Amino acid sequence: MKDIEGGITAPHGFKSSGISSGLKDSGKKDLALIYTEKPADISAVFTTNQVQAAPVKLSKERISNGGPVKAIIINSGNANACTGKEGLVNARRMAVVTARSLDIEPGEVMIASTGIIGKRLPIEKIENALPEAVAELSSEDNHAAEAILTTDTCCKEKALKFRLPLRDREVRIGGMAKGSGMIHPRMATMLAFITTDLAISSKLLKKALAEAVDVSFNKISVDGDQSTNDTVFLLANGKAGGRKITECDRDFTVFVKALKKISQSLAKKIVADGEGATKFITINVKGAQSEEGAEEVARKIANSSLVKTACFGSDPNWGRILAAAGASNVEIKEDTIQVAINGQILFDKGLPVSRSSSKLEGLMDGENIEIDINLNNGDKSTVFWTTDISYKYVEINAEYHT
Amino acid sequence: MKDIEGGITAPHGFKSSGISSGLKDSGKKDLALIYTEKPADISAVFTTNQVQAAPVKLSKERISNGGPVKAIIINSGNANACTGKEGLVNARRMAVVTARSLDIEPGEVMIASTGIIGKRLPIEKIENALPEAVAELSSEDNHAAEAILTTDTCCKEKALKFRLPLRDREVRIGGMAKGSGMIHPRMATMLAFITTDLAISSKLLKKALAEAVDVSFNKISVDGDQSTNDTVFLLANGKAGGRKITECDRDFTVFVKALKKISQSLAKKIVADGEGATKFITINVKGAQSEEGAEEVARKIANSSLVKTACFGSDPNWGRILAAAGASNVEIKEDTIQVAINGQILFDKGLPVSRSSSKLEGLMDGENIEIDINLNNGDKSTVFWTTDISYKYVEINAEYHT
Repeated sequence: MKDIEGGITAPHGFKSSGISSGLKDSGKKDLALIYTEKPADISAVFTTNQVQAAPVKLSKERISNGGPVKAIIINSGNANACTGKEGLVNARRMAVVTARSLDIEPGEVMIASTGIIGKRLPIEKIENALPEAVAELSSEDNHAAEAILTTDTCCKEKALKFRLPLRDREVRIGGMAKGSGMIHPRMATMLAFITTDLAISSKLLKKALAEAVDVSFNKISVDGDQSTNDTVFLLANGKAGGRKITECDRDFTVFVKALKKISQSLAKKIVADGEGATKFITINVKGAQSEEGAEEVARKIANSSLVKTACFGSDPNWGRILAAAGASNVEIKEDTIQVAINGQILFDKGLPVSRSSSKLEGLMDGENIEIDINLNNGDKSTVFWTTDISYKYVEINAEYHT
Repeated sequence: MKDIEGGITAPHGFKSSGISSGLKDSGKKDLALIYTEKPADISAVFTTNQVQAAPVKLSKERISNGGPVKAIIINSGNANACTGKEGLVNARRMAVVTARSLDIEPGEVMIASTGIIGKRLPIEKIENALPEAVAELSSEDNHAAEAILTTDTCCKEKALKFRLPLRDREVRIGGMAKGSGMIHPRMATMLAFITTDLAISSKLLKKALAEAVDVSFNKISVDGDQSTNDTVFLLANGKAGGRKITECDRDFTVFVKALKKISQSLAKKIVADGEGATKFITINVKGAQSEEGAEEVARKIANSSLVKTACFGSDPNWGRILAAAGASNVEIKEDTIQVAINGQILFDKGLPVSRSSSKLEGLMDGENIEIDINLNNGDKSTVFWTTDISYKYVEINAEYHT
């Protein structure tokens, strides 16, 4: 498995473009188009928020109808959420005009939106800009990764190639993502688009995505909130050739491994670009009775404002970590739980471990903070990623005006 | 029902004191003693955090053994939490030395602690200070309310008197509380002490407290975290005289009403003094199918960092409120939910309500923000109180060092 340059257009047969349609007052890029000449099988995971944006409703409906797709159109600057019936009409229109510009069927187009909630989508701007988006399509493009951003400070892309051991073929996989606030586990998180030239059945594509999302996008949190628009799309166009993967053979296992790597890389990039983040926090929970339990403990710690502000202040406050863990529904035994920060055990066997201030001095000064919790109560574990809460986080979210 | 001056010593037969024992480096008051000459029935509700401080473990054990009490000793500056077996020994010692100083039985003493976690309780300081705490006992005292504070910026007291309609007797009830960070529903919140001179059976005292806590201390949140030490104590010494209340008669109903009023008043004072709070936010959820559902929606909104920062920025961001409500497990219909802020309906029937900027201008500039959500899905409702997240909140919690 080898890292390669680029993102969604790294796999063979994919093109993309990213342009400005005028949805953003800043004039920044706000319209991205992904296109595959060979129809691609598609799988997707959508937000679990009950308030769902029009593009989510439309794409969900199309995914459940099945059938391959040829394009995804994505706009930033406007979420087309809480926009009622007109929102749904505009979402359909977005697919129709994209299909017309590409000379394909509307049913072959998926859509996604991100940005401000509750404002009418100025669909005419997208309509006017589509010819340019089509004209700009390129297999070298990386403007799409820029056009999907909102409050993000940087593009998030990742690609790699690997060889299928049974079929002996090279396969590529690439992805791009956006999202810095409203990041929360359970897939109510952000937008991510992953492409591959692998030939694989729809059923296994779905299985692979579920497994990958579970250890990546479902394991990150910036502020514990869930959004109305979040979606992960996975497209497979089969351009790498070879016999289609239709069972869980060794090639499938290798593909899942690659997909997990791409997904985790994108998920961690999202966390690292979390609104106002100054620290990247990895939470390892071990010794749980179940994986769900390990995840619940990790999530409680990740979403604790007190833990997050302590990390911002570089304070090795194991007490807040312990209190957050204790607030979960998972059985915690104070006498057996062990808490370590950046390799230093700070609480063990029911008591704080005394450390000289020289050992604690500067312990959390770096950008990366590793919190290890061993519940000593089983053999299940999880890894979870989050950020601190800084002054900047408050500023960004208090000064963003509707 | 009439407000009166004072707090825990407003009811007849209660004395208290608050002194400095040297537990706080600042030299501020840190030891409070509550004493009742006539043994009092006691009821209490404790933190649901699985990591519980030694004083919580000890007081829980004593409450479950039943029997009246004569004193509560409370220290601030040190939580005696995560202190292992030595912590339990010190908690017991705290009760023993208090009993000895008052010439009563150790089993008649309840204890509570609040402050830093994981540091050995310097019990000898408390021991040395106890004679002074006893000497200072007074029915006029309000230093106790000061001695229980940690990062609080002000004392929290409330007292009132009322007449029992059946027994035709005047009864008094008073309380004091502390707690500004780590405030969260489900009784993992803070310390509160409520006294009354009512004569009432233990069983009904317990029932009354459960009802009052449910609509007060369980309905507040500052940062969604739960603490290791939180407790509400309710003492009834019967000094008002008259026949003991032993059934749910009209007198009991009046008492519960008074107790709810005291509890809500203290709970709201805790929220208003939340760490770095600049806004006092009231969340009214109506039209739910169940009270639990209404509370879940309210709690999701109250604990949303995005909603809290929007409130800090005085931004009428109904989209974040809607997204937070949608992230709950309660069924939300986007088409029927209505969202209003300070009386202005901003989202209704699936669509934003357009408002002239003159109506929105300054809508949230005041200290009080009222968020009304009508789910239009039933007839149950709840009221919940919380605060915003400000720069000051981050500062207080990032700069507090262990």
